[in-house]
Amino acid sequence: MRKSVPLSSVYQLLEPGPVVMVTASCDGKDNVMTLSWHMMIDFEPPVLGCVISNRNYTFDMIKKTKECVINIPTADLIKKVVGIGNISGKKINKFKKFDLLKESGEKVQVPLLSECYSSLECKVIDMTMALKYNIFILQVVKAWIRPRKKRALMIHHCGKGKFVIDGKIVKLLSKKK
Amino acid sequence: MRKSVPLSSVYQLLEPGPVVMVTASCDGKDNVMTLSWHMMIDFEPPVLGCVISNRNYTFDMIKKTKECVINIPTADLIKKVVGIGNISGKKINKFKKFDLLKESGEKVQVPLLSECYSSLECKVIDMTMALKYNIFILQVVKAWIRPRKKRALMIHHCGKGKFVIDGKIVKLLSKKK
Repeated sequence: MRKSVPLSSVYQLLEPGPVVMVTASCDGKDNVMTLSWHMMIDFEPPVLGCVISNRNYTFDMIKKTKECVINIPTADLIKKVVGIGNISGKKINKFKKFDLLKESGEKVQVPLLSECYSSLECKVIDMTMALKYNIFILQVVKAWIRPRKKRALMIHHCGKGKFVIDGKIVKLLSKKK
Repeated sequence: MRKSVPLSSVYQLLEPGPVVMVTASCDGKDNVMTLSWHMMIDFEPPVLGCVISNRNYTFDMIKKTKECVINIPTADLIKKVVGIGNISGKKINKFKKFDLLKESGEKVQVPLLSECYSSLECKVIDMTMALKYNIFILQVVKAWIRPRKKRALMIHHCGKGKFVIDGKIVKLLSKKK
């Protein structure tokens, strides 16, 4: 069961730098890719930047449809996350290969990944930097989490197949968001 | 003692999404700020994007000098990291207030933070997106780490003073960098 999240809280999901899975859909075909190159740009409405190589199948799909979904997986999905990152969707249906459950979005025509902790429906609002740096500027138009009994542990990529999983939580008085 | 790191490995430091401390220097004054909104853009030469609000003192410094240093702290420095993030350097010398050790860079006229695990000397190569989104595009021109006996644990910000510290490491066969 998914639960709507206030758009003002989206930065709390993306700011820690988790590995995400980006879904896109174009001409009746869906695809999914693994991505770590993203950052928050503004709080509300939540705007983020992400870098998707123009060699990736997803680049052309998003360029054409101006839509995608940023799905945040947890540590238990790490094998799927890496497998999805290792192959291209040009010739293979990754949803079938990795047995991915998908569901419909509310604001975009792109599938959400049901197994992920969070799914952020996004619209491309700026492609000025897409040619030079492969940067897409996205606005999150709808945000979901799927609450769990256990703490949702995110994955962070350190390169060359090395990942670090969320550890200890520390709380300190911060005047900032 | 610091050790030079190949520029091709820089993404391994930044990709996991650590909280960083950005140092800048302008008109004989140094400043430091805490930042989590950054992402890798290219591997080699390493290019990254970061978002620095134009309300921050550092924004004008970097805009003017086109230089900064991205310093990556470890969990033991978390109190300084949060303290530095809570106040502006406009009226206060944060280096004195937080007792920060600094050292000279090799390619930039900006102090490096000696207590941090890594310091990345950066030049601004593109400010096209600085006015609209506060995005600076930086190229890392020299990268340092300060090797330790213990594993260097990074800090990730989850918003509102909640931080998550690096936990378990997982290694999986990845075909990607």
